[in-house]
Amino acid sequence: MKPRFKKILSMLLGIGVGVSVAASAWSEPTLQQVMKARGLTQKDLLAAAETYTPTGKRDEYIAFASGGQQGGVMVYGIPSMRILKYIAVFAPEPWQGYGYDDESKAVLAEGKVHGKLITYGDTHHPALSETNGDYDGQYLFINDKSNARLAVIDLKDFETKQIVHNPFFQSDHGGTFVTPNTEYVMEGTQYPAPYGGKYVPLSKFNEKYRGGLTYWKFDRKKGRLDKSQSFVFELPPYSQDLSDAGKLASYGWGFTNSFCSERYVGGDMQGRPPFEAGCSSKDTDYMHVTNWKKAAELVKEGKVQKRRGMYFIPIKQAVKEGLLYLIPEPKSPHGVDVTPDGKYIIVAGKLDSHVSVFSWPKIQKAIKTHDFEGRDPYGIPIIPMKDVLHTQIEVGLGPLHTQFDSKKCIAYTSLYVDSQVVKYDYCKGKVLDKIDIHYNIGHLMTMEGDTEHPDGKYLVALNKLAIDRFNPVGPLHPQNHQLIDISGQKMRLLYDMPVPLGEPHYAQAIKATKLKPLIRYPFGWNARANHKSRWRTRPGRERIVRHGTRVDVYGTVIRSHITPEIIRVNEGDTVSLHFTNLERAEDETHGFAINGQNVQLSIEPGSTVSATFVADRPGVYPYYCTEFCSALHLEMEGYLIVKPKNYKAQTVSLKHGVVYTKADYDKQVATNMKTQAVIDKVVRYITSRNYKDYPQVVSLMEDATDQLNFAKGARKKAEAAAAKGDWQNAMLWANQWWQYQVKTADIGLRAKTYLDQHGAHKIK
Amino acid sequence: MKPRFKKILSMLLGIGVGVSVAASAWSEPTLQQVMKARGLTQKDLLAAAETYTPTGKRDEYIAFASGGQQGGVMVYGIPSMRILKYIAVFAPEPWQGYGYDDESKAVLAEGKVHGKLITYGDTHHPALSETNGDYDGQYLFINDKSNARLAVIDLKDFETKQIVHNPFFQSDHGGTFVTPNTEYVMEGTQYPAPYGGKYVPLSKFNEKYRGGLTYWKFDRKKGRLDKSQSFVFELPPYSQDLSDAGKLASYGWGFTNSFCSERYVGGDMQGRPPFEAGCSSKDTDYMHVTNWKKAAELVKEGKVQKRRGMYFIPIKQAVKEGLLYLIPEPKSPHGVDVTPDGKYIIVAGKLDSHVSVFSWPKIQKAIKTHDFEGRDPYGIPIIPMKDVLHTQIEVGLGPLHTQFDSKKCIAYTSLYVDSQVVKYDYCKGKVLDKIDIHYNIGHLMTMEGDTEHPDGKYLVALNKLAIDRFNPVGPLHPQNHQLIDISGQKMRLLYDMPVPLGEPHYAQAIKATKLKPLIRYPFGWNARANHKSRWRTRPGRERIVRHGTRVDVYGTVIRSHITPEIIRVNEGDTVSLHFTNLERAEDETHGFAINGQNVQLSIEPGSTVSATFVADRPGVYPYYCTEFCSALHLEMEGYLIVKPKNYKAQTVSLKHGVVYTKADYDKQVATNMKTQAVIDKVVRYITSRNYKDYPQVVSLMEDATDQLNFAKGARKKAEAAAAKGDWQNAMLWANQWWQYQVKTADIGLRAKTYLDQHGAHKIK
Repeated sequence: MKPRFKKILSMLLGIGVGVSVAASAWSEPTLQQVMKARGLTQKDLLAAAETYTPTGKRDEYIAFASGGQQGGVMVYGIPSMRILKYIAVFAPEPWQGYGYDDESKAVLAEGKVHGKLITYGDTHHPALSETNGDYDGQYLFINDKSNARLAVIDLKDFETKQIVHNPFFQSDHGGTFVTPNTEYVMEGTQYPAPYGGKYVPLSKFNEKYRGGLTYWKFDRKKGRLDKSQSFVFELPPYSQDLSDAGKLASYGWGFTNSFCSERYVGGDMQGRPPFEAGCSSKDTDYMHVTNWKKAAELVKEGKVQKRRGMYFIPIKQAVKEGLLYLIPEPKSPHGVDVTPDGKYIIVAGKLDSHVSVFSWPKIQKAIKTHDFEGRDPYGIPIIPMKDVLHTQIEVGLGPLHTQFDSKKCIAYTSLYVDSQVVKYDYCKGKVLDKIDIHYNIGHLMTMEGDTEHPDGKYLVALNKLAIDRFNPVGPLHPQNHQLIDISGQKMRLLYDMPVPLGEPHYAQAIKATKLKPLIRYPFGWNARANHKSRWRTRPGRERIVRHGTRVDVYGTVIRSHITPEIIRVNEGDTVSLHFTNLERAEDETHGFAINGQNVQLSIEPGSTVSATFVADRPGVYPYYCTEFCSALHLEMEGYLIVKPKNYKAQTVSLKHGVVYTKADYDKQVATNMKTQAVIDKVVRYITSRNYKDYPQVVSLMEDATDQLNFAKGARKKAEAAAAKGDWQNAMLWANQWWQYQVKTADIGLRAKTYLDQHGAHKIK
Repeated sequence: MKPRFKKILSMLLGIGVGVSVAASAWSEPTLQQVMKARGLTQKDLLAAAETYTPTGKRDEYIAFASGGQQGGVMVYGIPSMRILKYIAVFAPEPWQGYGYDDESKAVLAEGKVHGKLITYGDTHHPALSETNGDYDGQYLFINDKSNARLAVIDLKDFETKQIVHNPFFQSDHGGTFVTPNTEYVMEGTQYPAPYGGKYVPLSKFNEKYRGGLTYWKFDRKKGRLDKSQSFVFELPPYSQDLSDAGKLASYGWGFTNSFCSERYVGGDMQGRPPFEAGCSSKDTDYMHVTNWKKAAELVKEGKVQKRRGMYFIPIKQAVKEGLLYLIPEPKSPHGVDVTPDGKYIIVAGKLDSHVSVFSWPKIQKAIKTHDFEGRDPYGIPIIPMKDVLHTQIEVGLGPLHTQFDSKKCIAYTSLYVDSQVVKYDYCKGKVLDKIDIHYNIGHLMTMEGDTEHPDGKYLVALNKLAIDRFNPVGPLHPQNHQLIDISGQKMRLLYDMPVPLGEPHYAQAIKATKLKPLIRYPFGWNARANHKSRWRTRPGRERIVRHGTRVDVYGTVIRSHITPEIIRVNEGDTVSLHFTNLERAEDETHGFAINGQNVQLSIEPGSTVSATFVADRPGVYPYYCTEFCSALHLEMEGYLIVKPKNYKAQTVSLKHGVVYTKADYDKQVATNMKTQAVIDKVVRYITSRNYKDYPQVVSLMEDATDQLNFAKGARKKAEAAAAKGDWQNAMLWANQWWQYQVKTADIGLRAKTYLDQHGAHKIK
């Protein structure tokens, strides 16, 4: 802050010029001193330099990781490994007001399961929307394994917009994966169950329990999944696991693996060996190969019937139409990952020490030539594994999931049991490097690693409970995401990031420059429904409207007050609050909480947010802004007064706590006049510069203009009261007038600083 | 992992020795290359070295920050600024099972407000428990401003144990602050209201609305706040703000400031100027000085009456007994902070450009000599500000909160409007240094800064919405905690940490070595109530018990199965699941989620966790472990089968998915025999070393012994089935026997690696 402007602001607040600080001799520690004191090696220092991101600098990639049983999505920067946001998806989160305001409650209600509100999710695999096989930065999808649900997050504002429940499935570990233009979002079941979760005894497991694979149609224009245009493949009661969509060479097809193709049902308390024994006894399980493009054509041609509101493709039809094949794959596979060129499908089977590289041209050939080794018990043709394998590579113990490099033929696979990442050439079938991780890696992620054009550079190992890596925080440990440099021939460990909440299962990282989120919402926006809110309220149009026992409060928030400040209702009324944030500055989010009603809102600039509750207990309930918004933030308060039934009002007027005189008023007005002179000076400074070239400053100037208009309004009221000799109101309005002036000056100063720092010049 | 043991494990999983990796020429980038590529200055590199913490190294301090409207507590390490955990407190959080299991639901239910369950909190000021004025690392307290509640977190396991609701207050910004031996936890109101939130019209604001200050008695032995031994000071309807407890010289006293001592009531829609105008018009507000020690004596002597289950001290009694005084303090103060020696109280008033340093000896003298300048409208004596001020220091605009250095007389105050931290000498009244922060700092924190012995070294600026500091993530921005080095004469900015969730208001940082959390719970522990669970279940004692329509499931979890695997109930039953985690290894937390019932549990080793729900819809509901616990984690599954009312069971037995033969059984047994030989070898290796000197290895060995016993049990069942020629069950149990062997070997390997890495030696 420049001294001159500090002086201006100091004047505004009625103080002298800031004291000058004596410049005295001092010295920083040297790098060598710090390294010695902290026990850092040269390797550590290099890693520090490769990850440390100074104030204001940006990360190169943004990662979106599932929160696991936390129910949301974690967003962090790479290489700094700093967590930027947890996006609430399936579980309510009060900071974001998610699950506490009416708009987000409606999103959560969409995700009801058989009529029950579910307030958690087990999120596993986030998928960024793609255009031509590359991430486009527009949307993010994520599944809830335990309740067979998917959610859509809009990356314009990083908010959850939609939750859908699969009417067939009872679990969906295998979601989400997108086709190369986000035509469809793939969701596979995990644990077989009767469709719709209907009651069927376990004795009919083979006959009546089923797996499945849903291709959800994505309507990009609306930013919503369209259930009515989606289709479901009936699949046998194997435990389907992960999927991946084909690309380029294999465009139009999808690949879904499975475990427990033994169709084993445990029952340890009935004397049966447990699931883990029966589900891991065969040497191979099945990869499912599905032709979604042809299925979509059949749907279009009206050849697929609807069930439960979606198109449903029975196994029989799928087989008949050539939409569905099986390929044996080694023991209990997890990841099935299509190479960037779409020519190979790499399967990592956790009870096998190899990765198996399947050749898409060979699979295609087998399909064309009907090279089948028979059919499974459900009639699905089985393609012989040996005929379509490109190679198998012995990589180590517990291989799980594979990601790709920018370099041709280079892949990385996580080794859960070995606690390692292996790098190899899948064309030549040769292991190139291994690196130890800490510990028990699940998935791994390279930069844009699921696209047709991976970026290489970094790899993140998504490790499980960190045990000893960090300072201990009790029996429930954080996870550990380790950043690994993969730009050279050998992998190098750069950074350990604890995950403070949840257990991410998978993540995707996108080039940061592809994300262009909103700075503020259009005026009166319902951010969940993505349209103007019917409850939006302009300043000065605030009102309380009663219909019977329903009371709608059309309110506004702007620093530093909530309108209305007093809400009076009757015991038993249904109160619906609707607040529009009138701010134009991007960091002027306001919160709103009210005592005892379970209402906590986050109202970002421009948005309109509602909360509805029944005022069932007479009493006095303070409310206030929960986001530290301004110097007078604590004064941003109000009272909900709930009058008891049959209460007889007495006409007593409130006594003043402090009585003001003409002298108080005159003193305040004198201050205000001086303040206005300063504001005029700041405005002259800004308007004499090319400020219109800076959208952020234009936005601040709009905000300043708002505040100045409010100041004018307060001044009018002050002068009107003074004219009547009402010094109490005259003084208070004069003070309010000054409050608006201070805000104007504050914004002006921010705008001025911005111009100075960004090289604005005088206009002629 | 040593090659020899890799070989052993490879043998276990039936594979060959790992391929050897070709050593090829490669080179790391140089430090200079990295600095150039990433645009780092020498200063940046130094800051990187001062904060980067290599894998496995620990942080020096652990910070506990409130989550604000997120409702919990954030835990992070200093200087690495990595977030280690979000502790759920007032808001449910599914990863921790908090608010989803019966035990934590009981904690949340304690915090009901007038019978309503509140599922968020607005947490503001965490307070670490103290012994002799220093943090002792045992407990953490935190408030919920919007619902007048406090919570107790046990730092043995970082879990919330208790929530209390203040029966008098409707808000409590001014909490929590502890007395030097945690005798009491202070909680001050914010917005005046009728006690208990009863209905009183606003016209009686001065007469019937009240503030207050509660001293909650802390029972350290029980680790709980004891409402029945706590007392409440009645205070005038000023908006009380923050507090601090006296120490050393001022031990036995407490200090609580206020704003809006104008007692102004807004009402913008009734044409009244808003709160912000009326609450900021006077030049001074009041600091409340309370004598808690004497109050506690009066309570002990039976001289204080109880109201609403707590001791209640009316203003009249407090004044009469010399327990309560007021001191004017400049305009709208926020922080009131007692210096480490207890001799000064520093008040930062956000609408004044000074910090005001009050002298405790002078205050004492004024009290003794009855040096009062009158009484407030409620009869409380007012001590003249000028008589008790040590000095006032002009520091800048918007001073908020003060923290102390290890160096005598050195303090730091946050400047909200200036976006700076100021360092000054409060004895001499001299500003020493200022540093710019980004942006709008609220509170600040030094290491152990609230104790009698602050550590200095680092300061963290708790800044508000970060706007442009990080990659943008939508209209709701992260906060920015900036780490500042204060070890030299000039402050130096080291690191920007985005806060991904919530808005921390205050934080405290403790030396990491003072924290000694549990590694695992005692067997069958109810972690919320801190005693053995009545539902704990030993292995082999799992059972399903029905009483009428209530079904209690006494279950266990251990990698990789849940017992029972099948739960059959009738439509309409109340199902209560109780799972005990049988694991001994610290990273073997299991989760438990069940489709469609809103149940998500986190079951840490040793703990017993319950969930109760009504099975109101007939059907099939898969359940599974939600924490990636082992290679066969996905197979850790089961089914809840809810039989419809009036359903007639058919006696159909389940057909096998796969049929096994004697050959399958013999092959499995051969593998098992080889595996056992390897296990014996590993066990010989470990027991020939001084493993008993390593508690972590002892714990792993206990775990391995458990697994081996399970293996024996499975073997018995396999052999019994084989004896009867039942090859199906013989093969499955033999496979289960092998699963236990693999787990044994895995643990053995971990133990062996640990011994090797920690320099264990052969015993003679």
